[in-house]
Amino acid sequence: MSGSFLLLIYINMNIINISTTKRVDLVNITSQVQKVVSESSVNEGIVTVFVPHTTCGITINEGADPDVVRDIRYQLEKLIPYQQGYKHMEGNSDSHIKTCIVGSSENIIIKDGQLVLGTWQSIFLCDFDGSRNRKVYIKIIG
Amino acid sequence: MSGSFLLLIYINMNIINISTTKRVDLVNITSQVQKVVSESSVNEGIVTVFVPHTTCGITINEGADPDVVRDIRYQLEKLIPYQQGYKHMEGNSDSHIKTCIVGSSENIIIKDGQLVLGTWQSIFLCDFDGSRNRKVYIKIIG
Amino acid sequence: MSGSFLLLIYINMNIINISTTKRVDLVNITSQVQKVVSESSVNEGIVTVFVPHTTCGITINEGADPDVVRDIRYQLEKLIPYQQGYKHMEGNSDSHIKTCIVGSSENIIIKDGQLVLGTWQSIFLCDFDGSRNRKVYIKIIG
Repeated sequence: MSGSFLLLIYINMNIINISTTKRVDLVNITSQVQKVVSESSVNEGIVTVFVPHTTCGITINEGADPDVVRDIRYQLEKLIPYQQGYKHMEGNSDSHIKTCIVGSSENIIIKDGQLVLGTWQSIFLCDFDGSRNRKVYIKIIG
Repeated sequence: MSGSFLLLIYINMNIINISTTKRVDLVNITSQVQKVVSESSVNEGIVTVFVPHTTCGITINEGADPDVVRDIRYQLEKLIPYQQGYKHMEGNSDSHIKTCIVGSSENIIIKDGQLVLGTWQSIFLCDFDGSRNRKVYIKIIG
Repeated sequence: MSGSFLLLIYINMNIINISTTKRVDLVNITSQVQKVVSESSVNEGIVTVFVPHTTCGITINEGADPDVVRDIRYQLEKLIPYQQGYKHMEGNSDSHIKTCIVGSSENIIIKDGQLVLGTWQSIFLCDFDGSRNRKVYIKIIG
């Protein structure tokens, strides 16, 4: 093999708690994820960011201009309206469908102990059925 | 590094076979994935669940009320109808587009030998061009 | 544990550079990703393919008939039009929303030194705000 090699694997799973404040709420959790990575002392690897909820997703997108998040919420609502011909009795089918489309997790590369994100990228918890207290599971492989 | 460490990596890839019974069919495969994890004896890590098909995806969503799956199918069909102005000669462009949106894989954390899923979460194979015999590849990193 | 085990981990992260030529352009990057995997000499593991841009995604879909890619572009444009009621000043909100839906990364299993893809599967960089020079980060765990 070329390149360098590492012999140890970090086995902890960390949990971060997020309180959302709107029915559809995208919360920037980048600094909390970076904190977990920094505290693990893992330098090279990947981190899986996973939500254990069925009406909540994880996405990576622009964190600088809040209008980007506003436009994502606007268009998802247009594509998957809150109410319309769903059967699920709890009345939050739109939240489940949005979760299916956005996805329950993201993987981010770790290099030199830092999340490798582009200049404009942030990691967002997307609550589609808030406001609630939500959990995010963080698993580092490295 | 803080935390505990593991020295061994499991290198097998496992395949599970699923028969779908409808053109758009979401099949709960959680117990099959857990079985592969249990048989690996890996306690801590992640598992990648990947479909090697271009008209089939993997999603994580509610497995308790079948109306959630029904509503996901309903809304995906509304957004990406079976037939309408597509060029691809095989007539299943909607299946390819649904796959692109839902995604070909999911990663789930393993802790104490168990998939770490929320109370309501199940893993689904989503066939968008069934009925067919489909394969799911399972790769454990841990 | 059953199965076989490996003791070494590859720690490099590789970057590939892609020039896109249309505003919405899906570029097949499978051979470049395979080249990175081959050069790593890693036989068993996973590879994370990640774009560090907020208007660019990664998807896996059919690479044989170009009409599939054409139909994916067509339908994404229909669902998330270029211009319509967005607030973000840069005028590329559709690109951010498409990225949110398609996702910023994919994971592919490595077996015997090869990407484990289905017969019809290729890996695509999806530029939703081209033409541009784009980067793709490749991280092998194995």
